[in-house]
Amino acid sequence: VASEAVGASGAAERAAAAVAAHCRAVIDAAAEACVAVKPQLACFERLGAPGWRALAETCDAAREAGLLVLADGKRGDIDVSAAAYGQALVGSTATPFGDVEGLGADAFTANPYMGADTLGVMANAARSAGAGLFVLVRTSNPGAADIEDLALAGGGVVWERVARLVAEIGGVREGLSDIGAVVGATAPEHIPRLRELMPGAPFLLPGVGAQGGRVEELAAAFAPGRAAGLVTASRSIVQAHESGGEPGPAARAEAERLRAQAWALAS
Amino acid sequence: VASEAVGASGAAERAAAAVAAHCRAVIDAAAEACVAVKPQLACFERLGAPGWRALAETCDAAREAGLLVLADGKRGDIDVSAAAYGQALVGSTATPFGDVEGLGADAFTANPYMGADTLGVMANAARSAGAGLFVLVRTSNPGAADIEDLALAGGGVVWERVARLVAEIGGVREGLSDIGAVVGATAPEHIPRLRELMPGAPFLLPGVGAQGGRVEELAAAFAPGRAAGLVTASRSIVQAHESGGEPGPAARAEAERLRAQAWALAS
Repeated sequence: VASEAVGASGAAERAAAAVAAHCRAVIDAAAEACVAVKPQLACFERLGAPGWRALAETCDAAREAGLLVLADGKRGDIDVSAAAYGQALVGSTATPFGDVEGLGADAFTANPYMGADTLGVMANAARSAGAGLFVLVRTSNPGAADIEDLALAGGGVVWERVARLVAEIGGVREGLSDIGAVVGATAPEHIPRLRELMPGAPFLLPGVGAQGGRVEELAAAFAPGRAAGLVTASRSIVQAHESGGEPGPAARAEAERLRAQAWALAS
Repeated sequence: VASEAVGASGAAERAAAAVAAHCRAVIDAAAEACVAVKPQLACFERLGAPGWRALAETCDAAREAGLLVLADGKRGDIDVSAAAYGQALVGSTATPFGDVEGLGADAFTANPYMGADTLGVMANAARSAGAGLFVLVRTSNPGAADIEDLALAGGGVVWERVARLVAEIGGVREGLSDIGAVVGATAPEHIPRLRELMPGAPFLLPGVGAQGGRVEELAAAFAPGRAAGLVTASRSIVQAHESGGEPGPAARAEAERLRAQAWALAS
């Protein structure tokens, strides 16, 4: 049993080291065409403690490359637990042995299902750290229709109510709110209404590329300016070499292509 | 800088070791009066990689004590990411270096905001591992009123729609569904309706104790039998000694008191 345990631990350590090296390579290749990296936390958590260390190393690599870090965990829980997520992602934890720093992310994603009190705690955690929060409003997956799109008795749909909550808890800094919204690029027809409800919120726009969203349909997101929209693309950048070329240059070329498209919209 | 880094890392290691030892002591004290432990993942994540290791050790301690493990992370994301959460919590991850086992939890909690496709992927991950899933339906916090309680144009409220989704994706085994629901004990007036919509779902019932919920108001949850309700209590057990006595015996006495109350309802 002992040797099996060592073997299993070794696989996690080696896989996590490979993941961290891969992430650093992608960051080095694409950094000049990007403003941020958005590590998806589950992909690291599945490698256990070594995976969490690879996540921290990836955040370090992003900072060294001059990029912002958006920790994508879509967290949400009651007050005490929401505060602990804030400590883990953007804050620190006081212990009898000294303060333990969290990931040091510049922003993190949050789920609004449990309501304003849970979002408020996470917003305060972000604000205290000089960081931001992106709240799921209208997501990019087909299942968004099941709950987010439900029509309400009082008029409007669930995601419009969430958008109002996001606007209420946001504090405006330099024209943009410190509380942003996750808005799927796969349903661009909703973006003008989302921008109307959240005029100052930065929009995090997943769904471009592998999920079928198109940058050129996102103009309303950028209405307040270039910094008001963050187009996220993961598989289309990391796997760009599958259409030809070496991984690093292919990732960079795809990131540059997306940037040029987005900035053409915002100019 | 190097010595600071070592110092910070040392604080996380020492704090995580203390957390793991504390969790083991609570488990040893209260195990006989409980059926499961429900580690709240944020409380471990805030200590970084050492915290994740303490989480794995706590899960091991629970299993050694004959308890089930409910990983409480309230996860939710698009298909590929939801699958990765399944790997992290109840499954395993194939790597070129061998399979990496996840936490090996017996169940985990999930957030329904993003819809049935995300829940379905997590349900399948749980089912493949012989584990279960508890979906947030009507939570115990005041903010539950903001989204979960919204009245729908088609009749009913958001949490009733979520309850129907939970019933639809559940598969019945021995009279109980393998997909359960998180139902706050702070709003017992909703439990008869929730039981009606989800007749076979195990209910995870947080909110007893520190949040004000009372076991004696939860009878409808136990209608299908003793195994249909899991009363969760965290601070009221772990901090029971603050009302007198030693931590271990106080935790055990409080757990036994709650169990006697719950089973009196289910008999």
